[in-house]
Amino acid sequence: MKQIGIIGASGFTGAELLRLAAAHPEYEVALATAATQAGVGIAALYPSLRPVYGDRAFTAFDAATDADRLSGLDLVFLGLPHGASQSIVPEIRGNVGHIVDLAADFRLDDPALYPQWYGDEHTAPALLDEFAFGLPELFRNKLGGAELIAAPGCYVTTASLTLAPLVAAGLIEPTGIVVDAASGVSGAGRNPKPTNSFTTVDENYTAYGLLNHRHTPEIEMAIRHHAGTDVQVLFTPHLAPMNRGILATCYARPAADVTTDTVMACLHEAYADEPFVTVITDSPSTKATLGSNSAHVTAMVDDRTGWVVAIGALDNLVKGASGQAVQCANLALGLDETMGLTTLGLYP
Amino acid sequence: MKQIGIIGASGFTGAELLRLAAAHPEYEVALATAATQAGVGIAALYPSLRPVYGDRAFTAFDAATDADRLSGLDLVFLGLPHGASQSIVPEIRGNVGHIVDLAADFRLDDPALYPQWYGDEHTAPALLDEFAFGLPELFRNKLGGAELIAAPGCYVTTASLTLAPLVAAGLIEPTGIVVDAASGVSGAGRNPKPTNSFTTVDENYTAYGLLNHRHTPEIEMAIRHHAGTDVQVLFTPHLAPMNRGILATCYARPAADVTTDTVMACLHEAYADEPFVTVITDSPSTKATLGSNSAHVTAMVDDRTGWVVAIGALDNLVKGASGQAVQCANLALGLDETMGLTTLGLYP
Amino acid sequence: MKQIGIIGASGFTGAELLRLAAAHPEYEVALATAATQAGVGIAALYPSLRPVYGDRAFTAFDAATDADRLSGLDLVFLGLPHGASQSIVPEIRGNVGHIVDLAADFRLDDPALYPQWYGDEHTAPALLDEFAFGLPELFRNKLGGAELIAAPGCYVTTASLTLAPLVAAGLIEPTGIVVDAASGVSGAGRNPKPTNSFTTVDENYTAYGLLNHRHTPEIEMAIRHHAGTDVQVLFTPHLAPMNRGILATCYARPAADVTTDTVMACLHEAYADEPFVTVITDSPSTKATLGSNSAHVTAMVDDRTGWVVAIGALDNLVKGASGQAVQCANLALGLDETMGLTTLGLYP
Amino acid sequence: MKQIGIIGASGFTGAELLRLAAAHPEYEVALATAATQAGVGIAALYPSLRPVYGDRAFTAFDAATDADRLSGLDLVFLGLPHGASQSIVPEIRGNVGHIVDLAADFRLDDPALYPQWYGDEHTAPALLDEFAFGLPELFRNKLGGAELIAAPGCYVTTASLTLAPLVAAGLIEPTGIVVDAASGVSGAGRNPKPTNSFTTVDENYTAYGLLNHRHTPEIEMAIRHHAGTDVQVLFTPHLAPMNRGILATCYARPAADVTTDTVMACLHEAYADEPFVTVITDSPSTKATLGSNSAHVTAMVDDRTGWVVAIGALDNLVKGASGQAVQCANLALGLDETMGLTTLGLYP
Repeated sequence: MKQIGIIGASGFTGAELLRLAAAHPEYEVALATAATQAGVGIAALYPSLRPVYGDRAFTAFDAATDADRLSGLDLVFLGLPHGASQSIVPEIRGNVGHIVDLAADFRLDDPALYPQWYGDEHTAPALLDEFAFGLPELFRNKLGGAELIAAPGCYVTTASLTLAPLVAAGLIEPTGIVVDAASGVSGAGRNPKPTNSFTTVDENYTAYGLLNHRHTPEIEMAIRHHAGTDVQVLFTPHLAPMNRGILATCYARPAADVTTDTVMACLHEAYADEPFVTVITDSPSTKATLGSNSAHVTAMVDDRTGWVVAIGALDNLVKGASGQAVQCANLALGLDETMGLTTLGLYP
Repeated sequence: MKQIGIIGASGFTGAELLRLAAAHPEYEVALATAATQAGVGIAALYPSLRPVYGDRAFTAFDAATDADRLSGLDLVFLGLPHGASQSIVPEIRGNVGHIVDLAADFRLDDPALYPQWYGDEHTAPALLDEFAFGLPELFRNKLGGAELIAAPGCYVTTASLTLAPLVAAGLIEPTGIVVDAASGVSGAGRNPKPTNSFTTVDENYTAYGLLNHRHTPEIEMAIRHHAGTDVQVLFTPHLAPMNRGILATCYARPAADVTTDTVMACLHEAYADEPFVTVITDSPSTKATLGSNSAHVTAMVDDRTGWVVAIGALDNLVKGASGQAVQCANLALGLDETMGLTTLGLYP
Repeated sequence: MKQIGIIGASGFTGAELLRLAAAHPEYEVALATAATQAGVGIAALYPSLRPVYGDRAFTAFDAATDADRLSGLDLVFLGLPHGASQSIVPEIRGNVGHIVDLAADFRLDDPALYPQWYGDEHTAPALLDEFAFGLPELFRNKLGGAELIAAPGCYVTTASLTLAPLVAAGLIEPTGIVVDAASGVSGAGRNPKPTNSFTTVDENYTAYGLLNHRHTPEIEMAIRHHAGTDVQVLFTPHLAPMNRGILATCYARPAADVTTDTVMACLHEAYADEPFVTVITDSPSTKATLGSNSAHVTAMVDDRTGWVVAIGALDNLVKGASGQAVQCANLALGLDETMGLTTLGLYP
Repeated sequence: MKQIGIIGASGFTGAELLRLAAAHPEYEVALATAATQAGVGIAALYPSLRPVYGDRAFTAFDAATDADRLSGLDLVFLGLPHGASQSIVPEIRGNVGHIVDLAADFRLDDPALYPQWYGDEHTAPALLDEFAFGLPELFRNKLGGAELIAAPGCYVTTASLTLAPLVAAGLIEPTGIVVDAASGVSGAGRNPKPTNSFTTVDENYTAYGLLNHRHTPEIEMAIRHHAGTDVQVLFTPHLAPMNRGILATCYARPAADVTTDTVMACLHEAYADEPFVTVITDSPSTKATLGSNSAHVTAMVDDRTGWVVAIGALDNLVKGASGQAVQCANLALGLDETMGLTTLGLYP
């Protein structure tokens, strides 16, 4: 059994890690920490976790003084708010074999992008190069046994899995791309806010983060690294009245004489051996992926207008966050990549 | 009091007409017919209507034999499935002062488009030129006192109100436009189908009608007629888990040196005197329009990618169907255009 | 036009009053105040209200110093958190013709009940006798021209309208009654909390306030005053994943030889002339009342077990709060009781 | 690996069996049949199942001629509409080692109850005594190695797990019990109907099956057999706008001098060793059980009114149907009872 720590276990990605770890045949959760929720029962926040975690509580963790508590752990997941990983990783690195960070801190490889999109200078820029980007289907060669992994966000995973093979194959123009996406509300996190109140969200559909959503440069970087060409994307997220799920409808201009057959063949070839990406001819739906680590993707060409349309869907908390983090952790630990993960969604 | 008939009153647009007519100070519903639901109590299908309609039932109506039952009516709304209006209008015309059709039959002015998008030849092509297109904010000059009005669909109203002023002002390219939209489930009608079952739709977000949705040519025509230039649109509708509401996020290339100020000024000027279109700087949301006849619109320019993004929202059954039909009917009947309609949505 | 003030206009009942007042032919909103939201735009919190209220902001109001700002107002609604009305009413009374309070402060006529159910002593117990209980269908004779009215809560209105005629007619035992009810989330107010977050509530059904919900004594009092006999109720509220709506399923033992015909006849007789209570034989549904001031009620007797089951439904923000407050205000002001209110729900 | 057949695999319980079987380490789905959906792709109906079942289709099955196709199967699940199992079981019995029926056909042991509650005479009454009632926590001693098992319905499982220990311990009166319950929409099955359309159910809460729901006698029988005393229940189901989940709030009169401590101690003792029943002091919620085979239960006594309130929650398609059927099948096959089942719900 691998001894696992989750630093920042009280948020949605942390709770999802607790759920997935309980079902994982080789993980034992040795540490589950929280900041404001330290001392609170896991089941008080997540009653769904009581059958396994009982009365266990989140514990406090101060990286400055508690790093040695990580000794003996095989791997630590970080489920912290943006900015916190930058200060913690330098403290704890060396005390634990592997770190999988679910935040944005170590995803972008260009430190100049942080102040531009996040407002603050990066405080540990030297570490950026050491982190592998945790999207196995596109960057698996960097992940086997990796010490430091930054798992990408949900929108980035969806858009990159959908578009990267088409850009890499030269089938679509890498600039002028539109990514129009919708997310369930869990993407907004656990803390109650006017924007994630039931009465705000229910029976509502609206765009947010217009023109400046922070995942934009990450989408561009992921596709660029995979395809080897500069990419420019306009990304428009929307909030849909559902708990989970991301669907990205992507529009690109053709870069060659493409047909629906061409683009579908490209996706089929790219994902033929991937257990967690299913290429379909039907329209992907978020519901088909609920609770699973699967992404469903398709693509087509509109003869009338020339647009290439590519669509991807996944569960933002599983393949878009904690499931993908487990997939990465399995690779880092030398386990079967699919261990503890399911491909089948909960339906209906 | 104007005597009003609703032929095809048992569907969602018919029921919404019954709701709006009950609140209208000058409408009296003299006739409410149905086909398969003839004889069924109005409140059996729509329990919300019982306080006004009590035990009243939908009545049968056969245009071939019952046209004289329309004598004495001031206006008839047609809330029929696509194709039915083509056969009924020639029969009943002349028996009633005004007809407002909520179906697609008489919206497109080019008969060649019907077989292309609907599969069948139009059976009354000579009438197409006689119908006014019932979108008052863009075509009011054709609607005052009009005998025959074809009210546009919900997606068309949303996309046209959002884009038409920008195309007309030469601010955006009229081709290469992407309209990415989401609709509530009531747009799929009252008849139960796998695609509108709760268990299919709830917690789901998915695209449908990919590349070939029938509203595409109607969007292009409405904007073309208003702006006087050929328009080409790729339209991708999605289904969101909510009862009502349409939001269209539209992407276009700039046709001039535009800024967010430019495009917003254009919308403000276009709609300065329109009671049912509110130009806002916030992101429009479907919920803000629930139950009202209001459309909320905004626009902006992304300096980084050059895209112009314009967004519109409305209630698909009110401004997108029955409310707009009442607005048109008021114009046809010489009443105040806003009579019986509200601009405020039900929130939360 | 009556000049209306809303003190505490930024919560859900306040916003609903703003919506209803805009549609009321005799109301002009002269004052709309808020505490923490003073200075915030009305449409910033409620984008649905922009078409009427534009850029108008909530204003501050300090009862100790601003009472004279109420001079010239015909009526003030109070939409404040529990406890606040007790301190404000003594300050402002005399500066305005009529006060309709939507909080719990002046509903119970026995001051001893406040510390028992709310934890605190009442600070203005002498005023309790002066307030009329704002449930017109049961206590209309106290409301015409009344200066001080305490409008009841949503659960109380539902349960009382459903049960009071049956108790008054001696058809059911007044003790041992079970009221099992479900509410939409707007009943929890506008402030974001873990319990009203979308991710907590969506796809969830749960009971809350078990055994000790504060509306219990109010239900008992309302029925007792109407029926003239002591009443004891066990009240169990549940939270259902919807914005609006209350449904109360009530269970009582028969007090006489009753049948379904008997109990239905009793309800029909009680509400024959009531525009806002519809007696139906079908099962009431919250959706049928959405956005309307209607309550739908039914009752039946189970021959097998002997239980009498009575069910009522309404919109918690309209007939359960602000609509009923307008109904009371109309009575207080000598207007037609139904003015500005609709009986038809928004459906689907 | 056990060879498993699912006759009637295209409904919701069948699809859930397909999902659970794919995750079960000892099940291989050798047969998945359907009637009207024979020949249709599994993933066409349930896109969530594509990653495992690919293009596999439901096959036809005629019990009269195809019974020998069951030879070699270890166990068959029947996921058929009510009435069908009565005719199939006599045909196929003997061709397969074990049958677990998810329909109501063989649940009630008294053939006289079928015409009373279902309208039709039972056509195989002699088999009723041979079926074990598939609720392991209450009747495990009949299930080990059993050939014929009738798994109970979702409401019955919820109400029985919540109430049976309290009746058995003599803590509550066995008559006069009220079971007020709410269910998600999947309980209404896959076939589209007006009552399970999104537009009917969303933002709605309503009671149905008033006084005469077919699960009533099954609840009474299950508790009676466990507790050894006659039981009478008034059962009122409601429909809540969510996909899955059952919550039963049960009201009973005390049969002894009980306190909340007494009734909680009774539940704790009854379920101390049960992996799939979690006794909690918080209010159970359907969401905490989503996708899991767990039931959450609690109980309390209201000192003011004397009522005992007991509440249970579970996922109607897992512990309320297919998960419990797998639990029973594991017992029948001599496997670990918990194999292939999870206790943790998907949350948020």
